[in-house]
Amino acid sequence: MVSELNIGDIEEIAIGATILGAGGGGDPTIGMYVSQQAIRDHGPVRLITVDEVPDDAWLIPPAGVGAPTVGIEKLPAGSEITTAFRALEKYMNIRAFATFSSEVGGSNSLVPVAAAAILGIPLVDADMMGRAFPEIQMTTGTLFGISAWPLSMADERGNRVVMETMNNLWTERLARVLTARMGGRSIVCNYAMQGRDAKRALIWGSMTLARTIGRTLQQCRQNKQDPIAALLRLLSAHLVTRGKIHDVQRRTDRGFALGEVHITGTGPHTGEQVRIAFQNENLIVWKNEAAIVTVPDLICILDEATGTAITTERLRYGQRVAVLGIPCDEKWRTPAGVELAGPRYFKYDVDYRPLEAAHYD
Amino acid sequence: MVSELNIGDIEEIAIGATILGAGGGGDPTIGMYVSQQAIRDHGPVRLITVDEVPDDAWLIPPAGVGAPTVGIEKLPAGSEITTAFRALEKYMNIRAFATFSSEVGGSNSLVPVAAAAILGIPLVDADMMGRAFPEIQMTTGTLFGISAWPLSMADERGNRVVMETMNNLWTERLARVLTARMGGRSIVCNYAMQGRDAKRALIWGSMTLARTIGRTLQQCRQNKQDPIAALLRLLSAHLVTRGKIHDVQRRTDRGFALGEVHITGTGPHTGEQVRIAFQNENLIVWKNEAAIVTVPDLICILDEATGTAITTERLRYGQRVAVLGIPCDEKWRTPAGVELAGPRYFKYDVDYRPLEAAHYD
Repeated sequence: MVSELNIGDIEEIAIGATILGAGGGGDPTIGMYVSQQAIRDHGPVRLITVDEVPDDAWLIPPAGVGAPTVGIEKLPAGSEITTAFRALEKYMNIRAFATFSSEVGGSNSLVPVAAAAILGIPLVDADMMGRAFPEIQMTTGTLFGISAWPLSMADERGNRVVMETMNNLWTERLARVLTARMGGRSIVCNYAMQGRDAKRALIWGSMTLARTIGRTLQQCRQNKQDPIAALLRLLSAHLVTRGKIHDVQRRTDRGFALGEVHITGTGPHTGEQVRIAFQNENLIVWKNEAAIVTVPDLICILDEATGTAITTERLRYGQRVAVLGIPCDEKWRTPAGVELAGPRYFKYDVDYRPLEAAHYD
Repeated sequence: MVSELNIGDIEEIAIGATILGAGGGGDPTIGMYVSQQAIRDHGPVRLITVDEVPDDAWLIPPAGVGAPTVGIEKLPAGSEITTAFRALEKYMNIRAFATFSSEVGGSNSLVPVAAAAILGIPLVDADMMGRAFPEIQMTTGTLFGISAWPLSMADERGNRVVMETMNNLWTERLARVLTARMGGRSIVCNYAMQGRDAKRALIWGSMTLARTIGRTLQQCRQNKQDPIAALLRLLSAHLVTRGKIHDVQRRTDRGFALGEVHITGTGPHTGEQVRIAFQNENLIVWKNEAAIVTVPDLICILDEATGTAITTERLRYGQRVAVLGIPCDEKWRTPAGVELAGPRYFKYDVDYRPLEAAHYD
């Protein structure tokens, strides 16, 4: 498959990616503006499959780092994407053949689209999570032994940093404090990898999946079909509840948007009390105080009427929502995957169980 | 003048530099161990004057950054000096002709001696402060328009970072949060400059002055002379008080050692109450609640019996001390110098007055 992304495709991808983002990845509006403007200025983006990348060609994924709550108000200048990208190329003495998304998720799926347009290189139809995760080391890259460094970082003021660290966790630590000091939001480029590694380590087809989800929701809207039912079918997802948000607690700490949302079931779900903890992304959902879906599986809070995802920084009292659990990519369901991004990493005393098993206890 | 620094010279330099450090620069013992070991392993260090540096030759100064309180316990591995040095050379695509001290002050005067020995390059007899200061932008380099970046940083784990920032203050901000995250202590290389700039921007002869001070104190010890009187003469210094420390308040915050020391005058100084605030270095001294010496002039707390400096992290109750004010280099007594490192920068509502004027009001 070879295809081209035009301005009209961006919204579909944004809608779908925001659902796959599991609450994170940042509000898609920002990423839409930046990527649509880039396509307007530089022309459409060529979307290629992972197997079209030559084995020795280099790929570099750019991404926004920080608290999405800040991302709403601290808009990127645009130039920091190319600044970070070129800084890593220069530091590694390489030239990228193409770019890709570190994660599917709101704004961060679209930052690489903007990069591809501006730099005139293809976008690879893949990512390193099959969702969004809050920390830099939480990628299939880490699972396949690909280093998160050298990492380059840029902010909208022109500050730029390149780092090499003793391991991927130290990349996260140092990038996080820098981002916080830069005001809570930065653009990073890291996990530079060659085609042969990309073929093993990436999750294939993420952009196409995001676009399919976006199209499905738009068709539901046109045909007045229930979007939640359509998504449950399309994604082999499970419905946790439908209800109303009656409380959101949030704080921005250590450069993350942290908090908890409480939902009271309505309609056939009356009597259900659902509680979801988040760190940028939704991490764990308890239904009547039993943990039923946890990371690395996806927990998605959707507007019940339209099926559009509500990212964690946009949650608020009174919203009518459907909560979906979506199985994560198989790469995450290994012992290494669960150790890297399972509930215990986030300090929850809960074992990971694939949601298909847990949900039907 | 061309001379050679051997193991025996290190202690004299350490003693003198610790006095010029105005309380900062870190405990000299660590720097002595590291530099003496480097000379033992690699041979003596050639000390050259600033005018021996060719106009287009590059100089790079390495220095420890962080809270000296941490420096006592978090010893450098040694390798981080060369790691940071080589990282900056590689990033700038230059090869350093020689090295020099960013500041005279305890440990930090000796880190470049170690670097010179290990790398087999000369040490320039100069520095960028004529004393020690707590923040990275507080140098005569900044006063002469030399950029504090690119900056390289390394820790003992092997983490290394290179940054370019929008100005020297942002270099300080980003380097400071990184150092704090690395555990409170790191080695940085920055202010790379060519000979023609070094001739304008550096303070000449600092290492020689430090050694002269060290020798003077050792001679006083041998000849049973009053070291305080000898230093007052040698340095055109002013005696603030002699007395006993009756309180030390300290905290480590934002990667700095912050606090205040209270001294009660004894002997001819009975009745004097002296209070000194510090941020790694001594910043301001009040005598009977009147500010009489402030940065950028040097405030030095010395052991009354031996004349050796007590760095701020070593101050403790009961020490018998002499407090000296020493005029800073003329480069600091300009409006730009006072703005960069005067009392108002540190949030004290006091105008800088050269200590010679203030002391005799």
